[in-house]
Amino acid sequence: MTLPTVGIVGAGQLARMMYQAAIPLEIPVRLLAVRDEDGAALIARDVMIGQADSLDDLRAFAATCDIVTFDHELVEPEHLRTLESEGVVLRPGAMTASVVVDKRDQRAAMQRIGAPTPAHREVATTDEIAAFAREHGWPIVLKAARGGYDGRGVWICADVTSAGDVFALMQGRPLLVEAFVRIESEFAVQVARRPAGEMVAYPAVDTVQRDGAFHESIAPSSVPHARAQEAAAIAMRIADAIGCVGMLAVEFFLADGHLLTNELAARPHNSAHYTIEGCVTSQFENHMRAVSDLPLGSTALTAPFVATVNAFGPKDGSDPADTLADALSVEGAHVHLYGKPPRSGRKLGHVTVTGEDRGDVLNRARTAANILMRGQGAT
Amino acid sequence: MTLPTVGIVGAGQLARMMYQAAIPLEIPVRLLAVRDEDGAALIARDVMIGQADSLDDLRAFAATCDIVTFDHELVEPEHLRTLESEGVVLRPGAMTASVVVDKRDQRAAMQRIGAPTPAHREVATTDEIAAFAREHGWPIVLKAARGGYDGRGVWICADVTSAGDVFALMQGRPLLVEAFVRIESEFAVQVARRPAGEMVAYPAVDTVQRDGAFHESIAPSSVPHARAQEAAAIAMRIADAIGCVGMLAVEFFLADGHLLTNELAARPHNSAHYTIEGCVTSQFENHMRAVSDLPLGSTALTAPFVATVNAFGPKDGSDPADTLADALSVEGAHVHLYGKPPRSGRKLGHVTVTGEDRGDVLNRARTAANILMRGQGAT
Repeated sequence: MTLPTVGIVGAGQLARMMYQAAIPLEIPVRLLAVRDEDGAALIARDVMIGQADSLDDLRAFAATCDIVTFDHELVEPEHLRTLESEGVVLRPGAMTASVVVDKRDQRAAMQRIGAPTPAHREVATTDEIAAFAREHGWPIVLKAARGGYDGRGVWICADVTSAGDVFALMQGRPLLVEAFVRIESEFAVQVARRPAGEMVAYPAVDTVQRDGAFHESIAPSSVPHARAQEAAAIAMRIADAIGCVGMLAVEFFLADGHLLTNELAARPHNSAHYTIEGCVTSQFENHMRAVSDLPLGSTALTAPFVATVNAFGPKDGSDPADTLADALSVEGAHVHLYGKPPRSGRKLGHVTVTGEDRGDVLNRARTAANILMRGQGAT
Repeated sequence: MTLPTVGIVGAGQLARMMYQAAIPLEIPVRLLAVRDEDGAALIARDVMIGQADSLDDLRAFAATCDIVTFDHELVEPEHLRTLESEGVVLRPGAMTASVVVDKRDQRAAMQRIGAPTPAHREVATTDEIAAFAREHGWPIVLKAARGGYDGRGVWICADVTSAGDVFALMQGRPLLVEAFVRIESEFAVQVARRPAGEMVAYPAVDTVQRDGAFHESIAPSSVPHARAQEAAAIAMRIADAIGCVGMLAVEFFLADGHLLTNELAARPHNSAHYTIEGCVTSQFENHMRAVSDLPLGSTALTAPFVATVNAFGPKDGSDPADTLADALSVEGAHVHLYGKPPRSGRKLGHVTVTGEDRGDVLNRARTAANILMRGQGAT
């Protein structure tokens, strides 16, 4: 018996790592790639070329798969609803996608299940922002309701003037204002959920953003155990509430000792890349198991500490593969390159190190990642 | 910079697991498969169809790769010598292949570096066997010098009559006679070696054969530490002596407290499949690193104990994929299926479990493997 074919819309690094996880389980995978040279398309046997924003392409792709899942959140929810109405099995489905694609709907879902969030409000004028700031103080955070990613679409504004600049930039697209939170720490919890609701949660993991983009993670999180437990419970309630199938990542802040729920992603997430070596079952394997409706695997850590550091394209535009040999010389460094053309500042890979000491694993992962990022000229 | 393309001759499970290991390192891999449906061909992007015993096919394949390595040992050493003389980079090379393909040459290499072996001799007549048995006693072990694999080509003979039957069967093909060793335990050591000689050895691992075929492994080996160290030193001396590049597996017996060297395989080996989850760097990753001349990774265990149990095709001819869901329900079971058509008794996959307790990990790995082998009818 052959398992159902899982189609992945998009062929970036998430699809590439899902593909790797599917091989040992004999889960047949088919990709919808934009180009033959997309990171995941480079290594996969069964690739269709097409556009994720074309309903025709999505329909043609889905017709050749049993289950459809996603490398990214760029598919129009309206297209997803159409496909579902035509009988396509989407995991996650259109309802989940419509929530995560819009930060207003994310916030609404969090409030519905009683998850604490920063104070927030949809705003259409600078007057409304000024009113919000009178209640919650300056600075405030403005977020594009849609299309934000890796720090894009988030602005911290100290006054009405800078908020007005964001309005001008956004040209009427919907904005959310949020209270600026003085964060003690930032962490994430990921959940894998099967169609009938069976779930597993991963350990809370500390995350570090830099310039708004995910930069590094260390597991387990150093937040108090009770807060980590609370976060896991919230993440699972959200997964249920939005009917997520597959991986859900939930980002949290700790502020003043209290938990605040930040953002959601209904897919494998950078904050859990550490699970490839750091947990018994990686987020990619559990995503493929969940969407294939197979039993989920253990999320236990494989070592006392696990650090993951992203590698971005060197400033000189050279390829991290040029310095791969040196990076592999770092003891225990697990290097993951994404098969993407190099470009300065582009996320091209990550490094994970597991071990007994928190500082040591972080140090080794950073050392190897820095080697990948140093460019050809430096030594 | 793109890394050199590694061509793999053969597309079985070893190629499939090498392919997985190559993805995160962006090592481009090309396969020479017999059929489009070979286990590794099913999941690889870049596949050429051809015969490993055809010099023309090998030559055409090699012309499109920078480095050529192997999924199996079925290539004629004469072809390999020809390819090398034409400038093809083979890793391992023709010299290594010519040694491992013939048990007489394996024994000679072992003796050259002073590795202890069972008493042995090439024999051409039953009289010579009788003479050997007068020295070393009955039973004796007869081995086909070439073409043996997974217990095929090995016979234990209690007397001259049964030895004569083997001669008749072998129709003049070369035979080796060996003293029958009362084995206390059987274990293996694997070494990864780079072109210039840099090497790492994996921990000794206990191995269990059943019906002559590799059945299960548990690491670390329970043989005395000094014997394990001695075995690692022997394995590294052999790797040097035969100029192996890539993985070398060396099987050992412990008999009467002494070490005896059994057989060699110059490729990733079933006895080290446990390294995928059980060591910091798997044998497949270190094979790809070694043949690509990249620094080798740590071979440290990731847990106190690691058990791997093979899954063979169920008696009813059904597919282990049919019972995959139940196997995945076993706590911590890492299931690896090879993408091969099911056939009763055929090696179709393996299961690995890591943990704190030797008995517990073995028990869980056996439970999951037994589920994969139970067939459709049973429950």
